[in-house]
Amino acid sequence: MVLNYRAIVKLSGIIIDLLAGLMLPSLLVSVIYEEEEAISSFIYTILPMFVIGSIIIITVKADFNHLRIRDGFVIVALCWILGSFLGAIPFVLSGYIPNFIDAFFETASGFTTTGSTILTDIEILPKGLLFWRSFTHWIGGMGIIVFAIALLPMLGISGQRIAKAETTGPTFGKLTPKLTESAKILYTIYIGLTILEVVLLMLGGMDLYDSLIHTFGSVGTGGFSNYNASIAHFNSLYIEVVIMVFMILAGTNFTLYYYALRGHWREFFSDSELRCYLLILSGATLLIALNLWLSGTSDSIGQSLRFSAFQSASIMTTTGFGSTDFDLWPTFSKMTLFILMFIGGSSSSTAGGMKVIRILLLFKLIKRGIAVRLHPRAVISIKINEKPIPADTISAVANFFFLYVGIFFIGTLLLSLENYDLETTASAVAACLSNIGPGFNLVGPVLNFSLFSDASTFMLAILMLIGRLELFTIILLFTRQFWNPDK
Amino acid sequence: MVLNYRAIVKLSGIIIDLLAGLMLPSLLVSVIYEEEEAISSFIYTILPMFVIGSIIIITVKADFNHLRIRDGFVIVALCWILGSFLGAIPFVLSGYIPNFIDAFFETASGFTTTGSTILTDIEILPKGLLFWRSFTHWIGGMGIIVFAIALLPMLGISGQRIAKAETTGPTFGKLTPKLTESAKILYTIYIGLTILEVVLLMLGGMDLYDSLIHTFGSVGTGGFSNYNASIAHFNSLYIEVVIMVFMILAGTNFTLYYYALRGHWREFFSDSELRCYLLILSGATLLIALNLWLSGTSDSIGQSLRFSAFQSASIMTTTGFGSTDFDLWPTFSKMTLFILMFIGGSSSSTAGGMKVIRILLLFKLIKRGIAVRLHPRAVISIKINEKPIPADTISAVANFFFLYVGIFFIGTLLLSLENYDLETTASAVAACLSNIGPGFNLVGPVLNFSLFSDASTFMLAILMLIGRLELFTIILLFTRQFWNPDK
Repeated sequence: MVLNYRAIVKLSGIIIDLLAGLMLPSLLVSVIYEEEEAISSFIYTILPMFVIGSIIIITVKADFNHLRIRDGFVIVALCWILGSFLGAIPFVLSGYIPNFIDAFFETASGFTTTGSTILTDIEILPKGLLFWRSFTHWIGGMGIIVFAIALLPMLGISGQRIAKAETTGPTFGKLTPKLTESAKILYTIYIGLTILEVVLLMLGGMDLYDSLIHTFGSVGTGGFSNYNASIAHFNSLYIEVVIMVFMILAGTNFTLYYYALRGHWREFFSDSELRCYLLILSGATLLIALNLWLSGTSDSIGQSLRFSAFQSASIMTTTGFGSTDFDLWPTFSKMTLFILMFIGGSSSSTAGGMKVIRILLLFKLIKRGIAVRLHPRAVISIKINEKPIPADTISAVANFFFLYVGIFFIGTLLLSLENYDLETTASAVAACLSNIGPGFNLVGPVLNFSLFSDASTFMLAILMLIGRLELFTIILLFTRQFWNPDK
Repeated sequence: MVLNYRAIVKLSGIIIDLLAGLMLPSLLVSVIYEEEEAISSFIYTILPMFVIGSIIIITVKADFNHLRIRDGFVIVALCWILGSFLGAIPFVLSGYIPNFIDAFFETASGFTTTGSTILTDIEILPKGLLFWRSFTHWIGGMGIIVFAIALLPMLGISGQRIAKAETTGPTFGKLTPKLTESAKILYTIYIGLTILEVVLLMLGGMDLYDSLIHTFGSVGTGGFSNYNASIAHFNSLYIEVVIMVFMILAGTNFTLYYYALRGHWREFFSDSELRCYLLILSGATLLIALNLWLSGTSDSIGQSLRFSAFQSASIMTTTGFGSTDFDLWPTFSKMTLFILMFIGGSSSSTAGGMKVIRILLLFKLIKRGIAVRLHPRAVISIKINEKPIPADTISAVANFFFLYVGIFFIGTLLLSLENYDLETTASAVAACLSNIGPGFNLVGPVLNFSLFSDASTFMLAILMLIGRLELFTIILLFTRQFWNPDK
């Protein structure tokens, strides 16, 4: 047998029960705000899920000791796909997103921490549903950190962990009894950041509900807001600064916080990826601020910096919150944001995109390539954090880049059948594949993804999943090799 | 000393004299058509060049036995840069392109076989100047074949020759006494194709002058026409078919013609790159034809095929001739063309772009990457034409891809300072870097590159040179490593 089907089915039962449980807080919110539609749609979703999940768990006998790499890929993909399918049901039952594919898109956008929406008016939705919509960001953010730090190395997709793979520091990477311990530390950091942001936002005058929604959006680098105008709704410098700081923190490698917690600040600040991440972010902020100021888009250099810092952080960390309509910015600023979309945040963070560590490695490969032209016989090793990177990691990163560019072009080609302009088309694909949220022009920050056909909406949701699970996890499932192991 | 400066200066003298000689046919055309402005501007260019070149050759004593890789890079770059600078003079002297940077752009566009123009009305230029403009395509095309087949391997940029590098066939690659012989064969094939196309076009009713202009444009995959409407001017299916066939022939690996001439048809037709090239071309033609037909852009499937076949061939071979205004096509067709812009033609042809062989290799790398995920310990070799490709060639191709994408993004970012829309900006950069000619929207096939500032025009000309000389040749000259060999 290609796969351990029994174990996969049984795990699906567990995932279904877990998802049902994760919907309870949203049900509670609906009860508090006395929203009958939302209450009934949650109950009609949670109860059957719980029953079906439990029946599967009880009736299916499975042997979890015989799980192989193949099974791992299917299970990881299943978590996100089942989440996006089942999590969509309350939106459909309540009638607020009647089309199931739209609801699937919205929920996938939540769990993958993308933040693209098909809603034309967010504010008419009940608070319970909006809570669920944003809570998926928070679940997805935690899920991706466990996935990236603990599960990915098991699946052989180690490209994300280059910087740490060779260090003698904490080896989060192995699926041994240590996994539980590593996961606990990560949970603690993630929950700690969450509580801190909620408190800080409330100090700025936000109510608890709004604080939770925007905290889920920032620590998960998701970007769903409960206001049509996103962060611009608050028009508060304090709130923008708090959210910006937490987006940047969420886009930082979480294993670094482990160092920081143990007082190893030197290792924290000398990390190549962190330095590169902050350098790109500050560079983009300055360039955009200058461009906004010199072009007269903003009145003062101060206002230009305020907008450019928030928007650069929002796009680079792949959050997608908007403090202004950046689609009206000059082309240079938009192009800078477009480049940030591809780069993305740090590895082992909740951010999407290609990840800074990969870009850093590619940059070093180009430098080596140039040196090799001049000294054809030289053997030059690639180092990050002063440790040489093994050849198979380099090859994995190069492959990731080819595949990313390839998927971007194929996605754009397919979406171009909708016959919208190239800017809308290409930025929509980049926004989904890199888990950003908004794109440019017709999918710009004050608009939404409702314009596409069902087929395209579904494809964009799949692109979010592909991007979120580091390409190979999903792509593999569509290959012949995967299903015919003997070939 | 870093470089053999004396040899480089002496070679510059030779290049200057050679260029002066290559302008003589254009002077002759001016004389035939009795164009006084053109005659005097050619004479005032040719005479001083000949004098200065000869003085340099006579006075500078150089030792050509001590040329190293570094010198090779400078000399190759110098050929194209000197050509573009000096070749621009007649345009300026005649007053038809008064701005020197514009003239430099136009001439670089000629020598690099790009075909982008800053002229808003081509037809007002004297025939002698238009002849020179197109003749640069023909010179550049021949130059690039000698460069790609004979000189590049010497400079260690062997990525283009992957398919042939390992075969036991003709070793064009070595700068030995054989170079003269190899070059002779290449000249013969190139001149043979030229004569054949001129004859075929004249049989279709074109006069000798127009036939020469359009032959230079097709065998050099350049794309300059002497008519504003390009190939659409003739409105003749016969002429479109002839030009299309010769564009495709010019975009084919020239070493394959050597096989064909010796009767080795099996090796010719079994070549992986050739098959892949024709497959992509037919695929694009079919997809675009269907899109044009179904969207009602063309009246019939026949007309759709006629436009799509010509335009796909024109863009993929990086020629850039237009038989219709493809900027008015639906987005899917434009996106297909945009992808073809990056792919480009075959290695060792006159075409630009990344080259089919590299795309084929990257595709195989992705396939291997997927296989490695499932069988982490497997060692899978990459084969093309049933020969394994060495690791350093793979690494060179991967590097080329990173650098290409990097230059594309940086170029687009710089050009975005002009504040035109992203479609115009990105397609202008792609059109120059891949040596295509026209882009989309404001730089579309019926428009031109006159809208940009001098700084941007100059940058685009440099991008043409970078693209034409396989990136590294030019990029190297801007690195510290190149000028400080001890570091």
